[in-house]
Amino acid sequence: MGVVRFQISMSLDGYMAGPRQSEENPLGVGGLALHQWVFELEAWRRWQGLEGGVVNESSQTIEEARANAGATIMGRNMFGGGPGPWDEPAWTGWWGDEPPFHTPVFVLTHHAREPLEMKGDTTFFFVTEGIGAALAQALAAAGDRDVVIGGGADTIGQYLAAGLVDAFELHLVPVLLGDGARLFAGADTPSVEQVRVIEAPGVTHLAYRVAGRG
Amino acid sequence: MGVVRFQISMSLDGYMAGPRQSEENPLGVGGLALHQWVFELEAWRRWQGLEGGVVNESSQTIEEARANAGATIMGRNMFGGGPGPWDEPAWTGWWGDEPPFHTPVFVLTHHAREPLEMKGDTTFFFVTEGIGAALAQALAAAGDRDVVIGGGADTIGQYLAAGLVDAFELHLVPVLLGDGARLFAGADTPSVEQVRVIEAPGVTHLAYRVAGRG
Repeated sequence: MGVVRFQISMSLDGYMAGPRQSEENPLGVGGLALHQWVFELEAWRRWQGLEGGVVNESSQTIEEARANAGATIMGRNMFGGGPGPWDEPAWTGWWGDEPPFHTPVFVLTHHAREPLEMKGDTTFFFVTEGIGAALAQALAAAGDRDVVIGGGADTIGQYLAAGLVDAFELHLVPVLLGDGARLFAGADTPSVEQVRVIEAPGVTHLAYRVAGRG
Repeated sequence: MGVVRFQISMSLDGYMAGPRQSEENPLGVGGLALHQWVFELEAWRRWQGLEGGVVNESSQTIEEARANAGATIMGRNMFGGGPGPWDEPAWTGWWGDEPPFHTPVFVLTHHAREPLEMKGDTTFFFVTEGIGAALAQALAAAGDRDVVIGGGADTIGQYLAAGLVDAFELHLVPVLLGDGARLFAGADTPSVEQVRVIEAPGVTHLAYRVAGRG
């Protein structure tokens, strides 16, 4: 049986995105700096269907994040804010024709909608019954593989607070954003154990296990 | 010339102390967990005048924190909340007869007081003219050695926000406190560079340099 896990980039001061997030700037002011380490990686580019890129100490964590992923859960904002009503039949999210998930993706929403099958084995399912129902469906779809909580920070925080996460990896980026969206904002606080640390250019990868799970 | 630096333990959710700090519980609820990694270290015990203890991957960071320290700066709460008025002549703080600093210590306060000479080369000087004056005096006392901002989190935050810190080390502890005292709480945000990472039992040591300094 797989585990329920997430991975996310975090600033030194604990933010997943900078202040003043908007449709035009979903990462918030300064938030792009949280992701610079990943954009040039060969492993990440390959996942996006792109060629080239560098291989370094971060490559392993990207390969691992993809490996063994059997299903993905995300909030509706991560599926796509979109140009029109996000749940219009014509709107397929902002991940393009071939989204980089390559698994069933369960989107938390209040709007029922038919499943949306994309290229490359990604199908979006829209779940209106809450995080528990989405997890049950994702576990069933994943079988022996992992369920990845894709984001955003709010969605991850809800699963953490509900005690439904087994393991996670933080990509700690040496930047201070001063304000923005926090991951661990007043959530109930599970006990965690440090599993592994990787120092890489411009980022440190910190893997944790939630005590008593997995 | 030395650098101006600090080191501090931080929870995964960015706290230096838990919620509801008080004179009886200065670390706040759950805050003791931030310091478990250090208490059993031989290097730390030796610094406190104690025998025994373990040697592990954390020992190096403790040795380095002590090495080359020429002066220390701290807030009045770190000097000692104390049983009576903290600035009574009879009150010598809560560090005992032989405090573990072994340097001149500049205490930020609004109450002028004569210097207090302790055993083991620690002398407390009480500075009423603010953080800039304390730093100037500490730099003069340190000579070619480093000035260590000892704490607490408020004092460190003031020096960070004023752009007076050259380097720092975070001891990131796998615990979630949910609430408490944050280090990087709305401070102006310097650019930092990752210098070194050490994975150790129950803690990860992360060293940073402030860009353009030191």
